Amino acid sequence: MRMVDVIDTKRNNQALSDEQIDFFIDGCTDGSIPDYQTSALLMAIWLNGMNQREMQRLTMDMLHSGDELDLSDIDGIKVDKHSTGGVGDKTSIPLAPLVASLGIVVPMISGRGLGHTGGTLDKLEAIPGFQVEIDEDAFKQQLRDVGCIIAGATGNIAPADKKIYALRDVTDTVDSIPLIAGSIMSKKIASGTDALVMDVKTGSGAFMKSEEQAAELARTLVDIGKGVGMNAMAVISDMNQPLGKAIGNALEIQESIELLKGNGPADLEELVLTIGSQMVVMAGKADTLDEARELLKAQIANGEALDTFQRMIEAQGGDGNVINDYTLLPQAKYHVPLTAKHAGVITGMKADELGVASMMLGGGRAAKEDELDYAVGLVLDKKVGDHVDEGERILTIHTDRPDVDDVIELLESNITIGDAEDVPSMPLIHRIIE
Amino acid sequence: MRMVDVIDTKRNNQALSDEQIDFFIDGCTDGSIPDYQTSALLMAIWLNGMNQREMQRLTMDMLHSGDELDLSDIDGIKVDKHSTGGVGDKTSIPLAPLVASLGIVVPMISGRGLGHTGGTLDKLEAIPGFQVEIDEDAFKQQLRDVGCIIAGATGNIAPADKKIYALRDVTDTVDSIPLIAGSIMSKKIASGTDALVMDVKTGSGAFMKSEEQAAELARTLVDIGKGVGMNAMAVISDMNQPLGKAIGNALEIQESIELLKGNGPADLEELVLTIGSQMVVMAGKADTLDEARELLKAQIANGEALDTFQRMIEAQGGDGNVINDYTLLPQAKYHVPLTAKHAGVITGMKADELGVASMMLGGGRAAKEDELDYAVGLVLDKKVGDHVDEGERILTIHTDRPDVDDVIELLESNITIGDAEDVPSMPLIHRIIE
Repeated sequence: MRMVDVIDTKRNNQALSDEQIDFFIDGCTDGSIPDYQTSALLMAIWLNGMNQREMQRLTMDMLHSGDELDLSDIDGIKVDKHSTGGVGDKTSIPLAPLVASLGIVVPMISGRGLGHTGGTLDKLEAIPGFQVEIDEDAFKQQLRDVGCIIAGATGNIAPADKKIYALRDVTDTVDSIPLIAGSIMSKKIASGTDALVMDVKTGSGAFMKSEEQAAELARTLVDIGKGVGMNAMAVISDMNQPLGKAIGNALEIQESIELLKGNGPADLEELVLTIGSQMVVMAGKADTLDEARELLKAQIANGEALDTFQRMIEAQGGDGNVINDYTLLPQAKYHVPLTAKHAGVITGMKADELGVASMMLGGGRAAKEDELDYAVGLVLDKKVGDHVDEGERILTIHTDRPDVDDVIELLESNITIGDAEDVPSMPLIHRIIE
Repeated sequence: MRMVDVIDTKRNNQALSDEQIDFFIDGCTDGSIPDYQTSALLMAIWLNGMNQREMQRLTMDMLHSGDELDLSDIDGIKVDKHSTGGVGDKTSIPLAPLVASLGIVVPMISGRGLGHTGGTLDKLEAIPGFQVEIDEDAFKQQLRDVGCIIAGATGNIAPADKKIYALRDVTDTVDSIPLIAGSIMSKKIASGTDALVMDVKTGSGAFMKSEEQAAELARTLVDIGKGVGMNAMAVISDMNQPLGKAIGNALEIQESIELLKGNGPADLEELVLTIGSQMVVMAGKADTLDEARELLKAQIANGEALDTFQRMIEAQGGDGNVINDYTLLPQAKYHVPLTAKHAGVITGMKADELGVASMMLGGGRAAKEDELDYAVGLVLDKKVGDHVDEGERILTIHTDRPDVDDVIELLESNITIGDAEDVPSMPLIHRIIE
């Protein structure tokens, strides 16, 4: 078989055979296919797509290119959650201990951030001492002891995906449903979970700009999961404005802790409870979503969710005292307010551009090798639909450099103030895909 | 500017700006754009195409990536011819001296063969001593002395095209009209010709399988040429069966000489006279195509065309005696006849597969670094539409290896014998594009 013929098939808008997909993934894994041929195929896939069988095969080949985690010796149904990524999306961080506090096993393998979206692992590393590289034995022991873990991939998970992902980033083929689906699901299947709730974002700050695209991706992810016997479902949630009020690594840890203390922002709490309820039902700890939601709210009220988070932090080497003392987290040197130029109602806060603003402060990576500043970011006082008076604070910029004119300029051109009737409809939960 | 944004534009089916095309070609030339990004863009161009402005810019940027030949100090209108390549297509070889024998300057820069089509330079090198690498001064001196030359590119012509062509070959993006057009026209403009006749092949043995595709490519080539003030036109000619009767390097030289002696096969002679007449009119040596054709026929009849060819061969270091003594050309060790299994009429001789057969004998290159055997090839006794008796010879295989069962098998499955009413209509000249 020749790679040029594999490219030819997809270029001509035909389905790749199983053997062609095997050849491609084997060649990516062992390095025998040069990058310039891989990238030509990736562009052909971006433009011509893949059918369900091709995506299933791609996923399974990526899975089998590396190691799999075997969690069968841990009792109970293992339930995981995955987000396609958004600005201010710290959902996983309070969610894992909240669900685990009900005795559900939550083995969460997460990643780092690139571009305008933050990474869960980066946020957790804002906690002094917190470790995300955990070997397999310690990973399992923590699941037995605490019930939850959020860590990076152990061992050699889906190396073909690593290779392909690096090329997608530089060849403008990131936002392709078959390629996203293969990348996410190969790693999720490899992590040994029994059930999975996916949070597929839609809106200006998401890869999938339209609800239809998001629904198509969600359907694909769920079908691939079910195809391998996983209990899978997806929530399509809004990413037109940032989620919650904090954007930035340490700031989002603080907001996560506040949520577990019962003081979370309304949208973040709603998303955590929506996804969490699904996880609780999947784990068989409740019969209905309403019942599950009541259980979760009780775990926040009685402090057990917070306690589980503290134990998770400590199990991973972090300083558990951050729960009660936020000054243990990195603090920015300067706090610069952004105020309203005129009175009105906030009609838009473009999520991706606010993410870029945080990145410009040092809170995110423009390139893979960039060092993060954990302290910096934005804290919103207002969100879309809120009224502001002239001169009233909209948000605070947490920064380690005194001059943030570039950031202010970007923010001002992406936060719009108008009339109440101009506020667009942005339901937090767009759709549930089962 | 970032290459990933250039890819994004074309991926999203938008026209590239002049600045984006400049950035791309500059980056190809200086090596600053990695191959994996170039190949992603090539695939996006293959799938989404380019408009006339983009193609014009691409061509001019490729042109300006290297040197240009200045022929302004040679008197007279310079007229060139280019073929998109076919099996048995030795048209350029008799055409250049034939036209030059009328006092027209014919500076022909040609290439080598890859795959099932042969290369004009390879064929000429079958003549003992013949040189195709000529420096600029000698190139011009030969145009003054003989009136014609067929040689490889002098100096550093269109280096960006060289880089891109190598990638197109391995990423299945060869048969893209914008990429073909840019590649051909950048080199033709760089070669300093005033007028150009293009022979765009259509049919099973051509890149452009359908007449519509061929017409679109021809129109594009002509428009680009006219856009830079060149007098350009195109002939669309048939490549469903091989052109002429000889396929193979030395065999095609012999057929070219025979044509100049007045003994050429009908189809080859017709194509040479059709293209040649256009060149003669473009050069201002005749007012009508009919008049031009009569002039050319006279040059064959009076031996002046053959004499010019002999002088061209000798000017390029070759042995001019081959004109009268074909045994000076490389000769194959074995001659194996292929005979008809039953009586009937030849209904098909698939050009590309007959080209592959010649390649398998050693007459063509499967890979760029392959060495050629100049002696081998096929000589056809019959062509499509001819009657054969059972056991009658259809063609002769000229080979240096005794066992040619593989070649015979390929030939038998690609030469069909049927009834007279099954012979498809294959006009030699499909269309003229001006």
